[in-house]
Amino acid sequence: MAMYCLLKLAPLFLAVAVCNGWLFGDFVGKQKEQDEISLWPLPQKFQSSAVAFKLSPASFQIVHAKQSSAGPSCGLLENAFRRYFEYIFGDLKKPEKSRKKVYDSDLVELQVWVTSADPKCDDFPSLQTDESYELSIDEPSAVLKAANVWGALRGLETFSQLVYEDYYGVNNINKTDISDFPRFAHRGILLDSSRHFLPLKVILANLEAMAMNKFNVFHWHIVDDQSFPYMSRTFPELSQKGAYHPFTHVYTPSDVKMVIEFARMRGIRVIPEFDTPGHTESWGNGQLDLLTPCYSGSSPSGTFGPVNPILNSSYDFMTQFFKEISTVFPDAYIHLGGDEVDFRCWESNPDIQKFMAQQGFGTDYSKLESFYIQRLLDIVAATKKGYMVWQEVFDNGVKLKADTQIHVWKGRPQYQDEMGQVTAAGFRALLSTPWYLNRISYGQDWVNIYKADPQNFTGTDAQKKLVIGGEACLWGEYVDATNLTPRLWPRASAVAERLWSDKSVTDVGNAYNRLVQHRCRMVKRGIPAEPLFVGHCRQEYKGL
Amino acid sequence: MAMYCLLKLAPLFLAVAVCNGWLFGDFVGKQKEQDEISLWPLPQKFQSSAVAFKLSPASFQIVHAKQSSAGPSCGLLENAFRRYFEYIFGDLKKPEKSRKKVYDSDLVELQVWVTSADPKCDDFPSLQTDESYELSIDEPSAVLKAANVWGALRGLETFSQLVYEDYYGVNNINKTDISDFPRFAHRGILLDSSRHFLPLKVILANLEAMAMNKFNVFHWHIVDDQSFPYMSRTFPELSQKGAYHPFTHVYTPSDVKMVIEFARMRGIRVIPEFDTPGHTESWGNGQLDLLTPCYSGSSPSGTFGPVNPILNSSYDFMTQFFKEISTVFPDAYIHLGGDEVDFRCWESNPDIQKFMAQQGFGTDYSKLESFYIQRLLDIVAATKKGYMVWQEVFDNGVKLKADTQIHVWKGRPQYQDEMGQVTAAGFRALLSTPWYLNRISYGQDWVNIYKADPQNFTGTDAQKKLVIGGEACLWGEYVDATNLTPRLWPRASAVAERLWSDKSVTDVGNAYNRLVQHRCRMVKRGIPAEPLFVGHCRQEYKGL
Repeated sequence: MAMYCLLKLAPLFLAVAVCNGWLFGDFVGKQKEQDEISLWPLPQKFQSSAVAFKLSPASFQIVHAKQSSAGPSCGLLENAFRRYFEYIFGDLKKPEKSRKKVYDSDLVELQVWVTSADPKCDDFPSLQTDESYELSIDEPSAVLKAANVWGALRGLETFSQLVYEDYYGVNNINKTDISDFPRFAHRGILLDSSRHFLPLKVILANLEAMAMNKFNVFHWHIVDDQSFPYMSRTFPELSQKGAYHPFTHVYTPSDVKMVIEFARMRGIRVIPEFDTPGHTESWGNGQLDLLTPCYSGSSPSGTFGPVNPILNSSYDFMTQFFKEISTVFPDAYIHLGGDEVDFRCWESNPDIQKFMAQQGFGTDYSKLESFYIQRLLDIVAATKKGYMVWQEVFDNGVKLKADTQIHVWKGRPQYQDEMGQVTAAGFRALLSTPWYLNRISYGQDWVNIYKADPQNFTGTDAQKKLVIGGEACLWGEYVDATNLTPRLWPRASAVAERLWSDKSVTDVGNAYNRLVQHRCRMVKRGIPAEPLFVGHCRQEYKGL
Repeated sequence: MAMYCLLKLAPLFLAVAVCNGWLFGDFVGKQKEQDEISLWPLPQKFQSSAVAFKLSPASFQIVHAKQSSAGPSCGLLENAFRRYFEYIFGDLKKPEKSRKKVYDSDLVELQVWVTSADPKCDDFPSLQTDESYELSIDEPSAVLKAANVWGALRGLETFSQLVYEDYYGVNNINKTDISDFPRFAHRGILLDSSRHFLPLKVILANLEAMAMNKFNVFHWHIVDDQSFPYMSRTFPELSQKGAYHPFTHVYTPSDVKMVIEFARMRGIRVIPEFDTPGHTESWGNGQLDLLTPCYSGSSPSGTFGPVNPILNSSYDFMTQFFKEISTVFPDAYIHLGGDEVDFRCWESNPDIQKFMAQQGFGTDYSKLESFYIQRLLDIVAATKKGYMVWQEVFDNGVKLKADTQIHVWKGRPQYQDEMGQVTAAGFRALLSTPWYLNRISYGQDWVNIYKADPQNFTGTDAQKKLVIGGEACLWGEYVDATNLTPRLWPRASAVAERLWSDKSVTDVGNAYNRLVQHRCRMVKRGIPAEPLFVGHCRQEYKGL
């Protein structure tokens, strides 16, 4: 259970026994108080005192604790130390001639103590990753304790959020104890690079923003009907002919590597989605006979439908293609899509009709879809990858491996029945239905985003445990580099807190106050997150 | 009446008799055709032929015609020539060693011919400004003819929109004749710098985008309840105490000058709005006794309401204040607001109650509002300025000068009755009701914006003539530098065409095709205008 001592703004969470001697005093000024409670997402257990320490860019350091299993050779942490130092101090440089001085009230270091024998500096995060950490701010040192680097990354973000500027612009941090861990293991953002190509720097900026919100999965909906920007080594024609432009609008192998490494450094998994058999129009440009020829009467119409499920060549292609994908993307999961298959083209094609009859499918084309998906799943299983699929695959009764993750997205705003059914069948479930952030409306639409809860359905405890988290989806029809980032942030932050913080954290007023400041923090760090309402930030985005 | 020869995409507009010999042939490829029809807003009269000329950055020039009354001393045009050269050729530089060569198929110059004796190089645009121009593209010279610099600016924009890149990236322009003029004289954008402070570069960028869309009024809603960023010479305390920050969140006199000059260079009027007696909370911080003290029972509550209309000091203040405003802003009009006056504070105040009784107003506080407005209008009239007011001032029966402009904004989506009443009373009317672009919805919401027409109400021809135009309003509650520009463009472009082009230009499919390209053109010129739908631009915004 969570304990809170955010006395002034979250009286409902007050647990007096725990907070004795730690309460915010009335002497805390308004501005200071505002800065102090800007943690986002809210940690699971949090105690803070009015005792404040100062941080100077000349003396403060983030260092490996002596007892830590990680040291200077841990590139991931070294990189993170520098990143968070810069988030805290900005462009401030150590005065050139001044000697390092330490005053009584200074916090001089944050010691990062990785406790397990293997810090996992060079690993990739996974669904099983332990992201918990403990943070103790006290003089002269603060200590961040975590089993491995993933928890350390989350704790560094929290530490940086605790730092606030006082009246003179001096960085302060209050005596604080935090014990924190995520409510859900899968906390994702879906970006769509097919409806519009997203330049690498847009993707990287959003990975940075994700880390600021403790998201840990980048669901890369990399290809779709409109374009195929993924440059395949095995089938280079796919992007050569399927991208908006074969040079300027593709992700090369080194681009993909960079995204994966940039994400890894921030504790973020990259799960690519290669959606089939529908949503594949762009695949057909570079891969002959992959798609089903649609018929108009007795002759081909010249247009194409979903992947052709009756040709062995389709499965040969998928075998080779997913063999490549399974090596390019290190994550244990691949998203295989499986949504919105339009049967009209299949229905029009005489060869498909014949196959349907042979298989005894009658006119139930969902059986043909299942036939395809079943073979595809076997192909992907052979690469030792797990898979995620959109809910239709489950709805259609395809036989699935026990560890399959079902991605619930339909039925806005109602998702309860589907979550119940998926988990009752023993599958792990992920929620996106209430979090289609491409859908916008006027005003503070983050509130409804914030109110949705993935475990808000009727089911047993065992069922609830099968809910591994959720994803905010920003489909690409109406966003590109011009407007993606402000449209996603801070609206996606509402999802971040829902998936990280305790279930009881639901006070919208309290969330608003913290989110306003969290948004300003993102702006200060260079992310053009849009405003929640009227007002201003201390450090604003200058625009363009 | 308008004539069109956009044969392929606008068959409804075809006027065969006019177009003989000018029609697009079938040999015109798809890409070329797309580029050719990207004019936005659509000119009134337009003829184009398939004959194309090439433009080289090494030889092409924009020059003053020999007969022109404007010459090198006309800074406004010299500046515009350079701006449009750069829009057309981007970073392309003249090859260093190559001598200027001219080939047969080249267009070597655009001659700009200002025909009236006074080119108006150093004037400010006004409601009476003649923005018409004639453009003839033919070899070896194109000629742009306009009575004065304002028409020349509009013609330069059109010329630049006619240039398209061929398959090799070479700039081409087709033999074309255009005769153009705006349907409405007042085509504005309202930006709100009070709910969020807008950095100067955001305002300037949007002035650039306005010029690309032939808008000619920047309605600067500069102050409101939330903040007072206008730095007044006469009353410096207003921004000192009323801005979000007295140094970083104010417009200094030189900032304001820069905005006005930057706008003038683009043929854009700057009309400031100083909205009273409501929407003035921020004024009260820096001007003692200006606002009405609200009462709770028999004692002041400590909060304040609208401008106090019963004190002479209020009118003394307004006299001095608007004297300054009338000199700082050169435009002949000032927007005086007058909307949404909340009577509750007045009602609570015993001094106001007493005054109401003395004046015989009973309990009709709209009479008190009118009393205030009446005196304010007299004060402003004494500065020789005309005024614009929000519709409530008219609705409440305030006595208005005949040339008062009534700004219609209420009753979304119905505006017909109000437009009818305002014009029936003989006042000039401006429409904004359907163009509150701060209100967003998912998908292509530009279509409804595009369909609204300011003259779509029941009334006589004389009434219709009193409609001087309209404004797209982007109120600032949910926008700041992070998201303003992509939220405004290209949605405001829909308003731009409605206010410039002929009434008959209403084909949404045709508009979509042109607007997609117009949006890409804005992106190419550095404006992060958001996408209308899936796809890509030749030159994309790189983000962040």
